[in-house]
Order: sequence, then structure tokens, then C-alpha cells
Amino acid sequence: MGKYDALAALLLEAIKEGGDFRKDTNAIPVGISNRHIHLSQADLDTLFGAGYQLTNTKDLSQPKQYACKETLTIAGPKGAIEKVRILGPVRNETQIEILQADCFKLGIKAPVRMSADLTGTPGLTLIGPQGSVILTKGAIIAQRHIHMTLEDAARLGVTDGQQVTIQVDGLRGGTYSHVAIRANNTSALECHIDTEEANAMNLSANSTITIVK
Amino acid sequence: MGKYDALAALLLEAIKEGGDFRKDTNAIPVGISNRHIHLSQADLDTLFGAGYQLTNTKDLSQPKQYACKETLTIAGPKGAIEKVRILGPVRNETQIEILQADCFKLGIKAPVRMSADLTGTPGLTLIGPQGSVILTKGAIIAQRHIHMTLEDAARLGVTDGQQVTIQVDGLRGGTYSHVAIRANNTSALECHIDTEEANAMNLSANSTITIVK
Repeated sequence: MGKYDALAALLLEAIKEGGDFRKDTNAIPVGISNRHIHLSQADLDTLFGAGYQLTNTKDLSQPKQYACKETLTIAGPKGAIEKVRILGPVRNETQIEILQADCFKLGIKAPVRMSADLTGTPGLTLIGPQGSVILTKGAIIAQRHIHMTLEDAARLGVTDGQQVTIQVDGLRGGTYSHVAIRANNTSALECHIDTEEANAMNLSANSTITIVK
Repeated sequence: MGKYDALAALLLEAIKEGGDFRKDTNAIPVGISNRHIHLSQADLDTLFGAGYQLTNTKDLSQPKQYACKETLTIAGPKGAIEKVRILGPVRNETQIEILQADCFKLGIKAPVRMSADLTGTPGLTLIGPQGSVILTKGAIIAQRHIHMTLEDAARLGVTDGQQVTIQVDGLRGGTYSHVAIRANNTSALECHIDTEEANAMNLSANSTITIVK
């Protein structure tokens, strides 16, 4: 048969195999995080009342994670920020992820850290409708990272824990280094950056990035 | 003479020649801009009263540029921002340089532009103590750029109008592309970025960057 027939046959075969064409590209969707709070059940009890349950208003892209109806005021030695969103479900330890601009406003120096790595981080005061919590640690600027499955990692040639550089195209483009790979079997493929990192490179919820090394 | 004597003699010679050791490196100081306003004299008159003169409270690093005591409220279709600093002296055209985050708050889409390139940009309302101005254009997000003398440009191997990529080291490092070179004989060497670009890469007033291409 001719080359066009051969091409048609190959395409038909590919379609029958149910290939996910989207996955043939190396584009990775971007998820943009504004400042937010993860609470322990003990702190949730103090802030909202004993046995309080968070109210899911929107599922996030990572499985079982959700934005809550509830917000808190966070306060530091130089200022406060109101209406900071709580994300559910509750965790073992309370953690506040803020922006660099928030650090100036609050008067604290939060380090760039991976989630749950809270040793030596500064605290903040959380103010809720039923009480307050004075934390001695827990404020971080989230280190940029990429969630993915182990299958994604194999396809993209990276491994869990590796740090890569990502590329952003366009007039406000560039690269971000030290982007941590977080690969396991319960993650959706998504590159997490904060609003300042997104704005500085003109990235929005519909943007994609690629790994360059 | 021995090698230490030879070294001492060379050092002495270099000091006598009055060499500027700082200029032997390719490090470029960073200047970080928050949102700000440049006003025409006509708009200044409307906002503060006929014949008003701006009050210099702090000279900026670029010759003859200064921060003013005066601030304005800027307003768009979705919101307003108070206490936005005016920079002097007055210019031919009013120009408002804002952050991407401000665009969301104000409800406008300001493009990334070089200073004075205002064709097709959105307007904003400026609110001052003696009056308001409804602008039909003038709001931009400043394109990152590097001011330098022609001598600096020759030393760094770049030319006026060229776009380069800059490198930032550290955990939050990376590169920014499309950084415009602005070389003339009245500029101080400084790379201008906005607060979101600075925060995303952990740059502060004491930081330096390098040109990588």
C-alpha cells in the first residue's frame, strides 16, 4: 500500500490502542497558590470550637485536597492579613504558606521550604471566631514543586526528590531553578508556584511549563 | 625578589593606579520598583491645584529622579489602591506602573511595556486632594530593563535596545529573559525589576544579577 494508506493504518492503530495524545507532550499544567493555611485538628478546635469540621467549598486538583469556606486572620509583629483561606483536610501539624510580600507586611522572615519541613521556621498568631493560637513555628514560603505520578516521572525522565529547572516562554518568560519533583501514585500532574512567582512570569491557571533539566 | 614581594609590588601598583575593583566584576545592582506614578504637569495641576510643585523626599539612583511626598489613589472598574507614590520630576505624559497583582485588584489588563510606550494601554482614574483625572491610557507593567552608561555597555558587551537574559543565583534563583538594555550617558548601572519579580527570585535591595546572554 502507499504511504498515505500506511499512515492512515498507523493512526487507526494508535486510536484503537486508546493512546492519551495529551501525554505525548512534555507540557505540565501550572497550579497557582495564594497564601493559605493547613490546620491540625487541635488548632482547628481552638480556633472554631471543639470537634469542628471544615467545610469543603471546592475540590483542588490534588486528590482529597480542598479549599474551605473558613478563613483566618494571621498576625505577626508588624501587621496582620485578614481572610486567609484554610485548605483541608486537617494535617498532623499546622502550616502557613505565605508570600514574600506577606513576610514584609507581617514582620517575619519565613524561609523557602518544602511542605512539612517546619524545623526552625517562625511562628504567627492565628485568629479565629472562637479563639486564637500563638504558633512557635509553621510559617514558610513554599518551595516550588511539581506533583506527578511515578508513571509521569518515568515519562519525563525525573525521579522523586530531584530538583529541576523549568522553562516559561513569552515576553515575561525565563526559568525557575530548584523546582522539586514530588512523585507518588496519588498525585495529579501539576507544577505548584505561588502568586508572586506566577505574576513575575505572566503565568495563569491555563499556563503550562516544561522541564529543561 | 620572592613571590610574596612580587605580589605586594603588584598590589601596590594597582592601588596607585586607582583602579575601581568593583567594576572588574560583571555584577549588576538591582533596583526594585513598587507600583508608582509619573505625572504630566497638566494632570498634577488638576490633582493638586494649578502650578503645584512636587516635593522631593528621596533621590533615586537614576540621576534627577526622586520619590515624592505626594501619593494618589488609583481606581479601576473592580477596585482601588490607595497611597500610590508619585515619582518626580513631571514628564510629558502621565504613566502608571503597576504590578500584575494590582491588575486583578483594579480590574484592568495592563500590558508589559517599556516606559513611555503607552499606545493602546488601558486607563485608570487618579484621585488627588484637589481633583480627579480619568485617563484613557497610561497603565503598564514595566518591562524589566537595565540602565547603564555607554561605557558599561561596552564593558558588558551589550548595546542600547538589546534584550538579554539575566541570571539569579540561590534556592529561589533562575533566569529572566527579555530584559531590555537602556544605555546612555546619563544612567546609573542598575537592573530594574518590580516587587513581584524581586520576590519570586528572593532579590532585595542589596542583590546583584549577571547578564548571561
